Amino acid sequence: MIDLDGWVCPAPLRDYPTIVMGHGGGGKLSAELVEHIFLPAFQNGTLAQLGDSALLEVGAARLAFSTDSFVVRPLFFPGGTIGDLAVNGTINDLAMSGAQPLYLSAGFILEEGLPITQLAAIAERMGAAARNAGVTLVTGDTKVVDRGHGDGVYITTSGIGVVPAGLRIAPDQARPGDVVLVSGEIGLHGMAIMSVREGLEFGTPLMSDCAPLHDLVATMLAANPNIHALRDPTRGGLAATLNEIARASGVGVRIIEAAVPIPAEVRAACEMLGLDPFYVANEGKLVAFVAREAGEAVLAAMRAHPLGRNATIIGEVVAEHPGMVVARTGIGGTRVVDTLVGEQLPRIC
Amino acid sequence: MIDLDGWVCPAPLRDYPTIVMGHGGGGKLSAELVEHIFLPAFQNGTLAQLGDSALLEVGAARLAFSTDSFVVRPLFFPGGTIGDLAVNGTINDLAMSGAQPLYLSAGFILEEGLPITQLAAIAERMGAAARNAGVTLVTGDTKVVDRGHGDGVYITTSGIGVVPAGLRIAPDQARPGDVVLVSGEIGLHGMAIMSVREGLEFGTPLMSDCAPLHDLVATMLAANPNIHALRDPTRGGLAATLNEIARASGVGVRIIEAAVPIPAEVRAACEMLGLDPFYVANEGKLVAFVAREAGEAVLAAMRAHPLGRNATIIGEVVAEHPGMVVARTGIGGTRVVDTLVGEQLPRIC
Repeated sequence: MIDLDGWVCPAPLRDYPTIVMGHGGGGKLSAELVEHIFLPAFQNGTLAQLGDSALLEVGAARLAFSTDSFVVRPLFFPGGTIGDLAVNGTINDLAMSGAQPLYLSAGFILEEGLPITQLAAIAERMGAAARNAGVTLVTGDTKVVDRGHGDGVYITTSGIGVVPAGLRIAPDQARPGDVVLVSGEIGLHGMAIMSVREGLEFGTPLMSDCAPLHDLVATMLAANPNIHALRDPTRGGLAATLNEIARASGVGVRIIEAAVPIPAEVRAACEMLGLDPFYVANEGKLVAFVAREAGEAVLAAMRAHPLGRNATIIGEVVAEHPGMVVARTGIGGTRVVDTLVGEQLPRIC
Repeated sequence: MIDLDGWVCPAPLRDYPTIVMGHGGGGKLSAELVEHIFLPAFQNGTLAQLGDSALLEVGAARLAFSTDSFVVRPLFFPGGTIGDLAVNGTINDLAMSGAQPLYLSAGFILEEGLPITQLAAIAERMGAAARNAGVTLVTGDTKVVDRGHGDGVYITTSGIGVVPAGLRIAPDQARPGDVVLVSGEIGLHGMAIMSVREGLEFGTPLMSDCAPLHDLVATMLAANPNIHALRDPTRGGLAATLNEIARASGVGVRIIEAAVPIPAEVRAACEMLGLDPFYVANEGKLVAFVAREAGEAVLAAMRAHPLGRNATIIGEVVAEHPGMVVARTGIGGTRVVDTLVGEQLPRIC
């Protein structure tokens, strides 16, 4: 039944003839899929910008439009559920272009056998997260797949926001001289999930940082609109985010390793599992590339906001080594912070 | 880990403690999920209108916003792939509010082990379908799930369109006196899929009717804007669509069974599998509820369009039996055309 009309895949994507887990890891394999499969097939300049959301002009309105599929396991984890994650994740993708998120859609793929009470609890959390963020879930769809062809529930949310006139925040807008800020401690969401999966226990349980960031962004912009690029470091963690911006903007990024706030529990869990916190997913943090002269004002505004209390400057943008992220280590040396090929996997033996 | 905060499911959804296939069938069970789970959780008037798309006012723009998840098996079928289906399906949901579709997003859930060439072929077909319809795929997301937790690829598309000023086409706008039109033969998509699954062969293979309908709608509106409700009869088929409009508008619908165009191959395949063509899914047809005085003009415009060549009037809207669809049968009797509880399943022995 497969009729390719003579069309052939543009490049042998490394050596993989089939999809592997790493294609969804937010690293190099994910980027290859986009570059070799989706961009050539979909052919348009908006997609090619690879922002967290697309910027569209519709009549007199400037809209941000974004989508994200959520396949997290377990469905319920410390600090959240797949439902609030799906709402906040898409809100954050919109917020990273400076947009005010307004409306969300939700597509559910349910697996036969999912307890109705679990679906109800997830939907309830989605509704609560939307109300908390001031957005409205206006449209949706539900499909059911046979047992053994899903994982309880997968949710794809899409969102529409309005981008204020004149604002242009995008991954390719970072400039040498910019300071790089992070809004707080990294690694919490990923290690909360990983701890549950691996059965780790700590004195203080690790909780996901899942939160909507648009109000924090609005507060930052009100303090000083000279913000060039924003991204929430989800899959692939801080390292992937810094690399994506460095590459899109054609600039180098230098960070001070010791300046990156990492909670002791995250550090401990990472050590036990053999993971690097720089590559662990977050769901309620952002990285900002800000014009140097605006840095102090933006930082102060972040620290005055509940979701940016521990914001800090972690580095700067340089003209040297474009597309590369370099960290100054604790012992005075430097190391290249590369993107991973696939996913970071916990040490299993 | 499941903390319901004391919240309980609003009603025992029939006797099912878990999700069953019928919850995704577009019938009564699907409607119960929406009414008992999603509407109470998401609490807003726009969602409660239950249109194929939501109508939003953003600044001076009137937008339609819609989402649909696609889980069809097989991924490649006569007349299409899951890719063009995902593009045309969301375009059609937008078109059913009279919107001009502009932008699409796509969320991919890939199963480990999917051949890359299949993904590439599907993406290529999506791109081609989008270009053919004049819409742009502007943003996307890709996740990978472990082998045995998907079915090759699931795609969720969302779309944004612009609704012309003054237009109000919605499921609750049908009025007694309206004529009911269908744009062509029914049952092709569903029976093309079913024939492949069941290994049926016919002299002329059944092909999916998968097509974008927005241009047909624009043509109809240009002929006479007095169109009250539009819906593409996908899951649940013509019967579900007529019932949904009857219920939303609080009117009765009367159809002449013999007036509904059903191709001989569809009829034959349905007979072999013990299915009723009225409940079989379509992907390139629409049902229109049109003010009686506009009926002839709209019908003529449909017939002059390549996607409406076999359009015909199949019935009318009445004030009697609100919420109910009644068919006059070939032998002069009448029968109630109800919505199914779940899905129509082929006879397997």
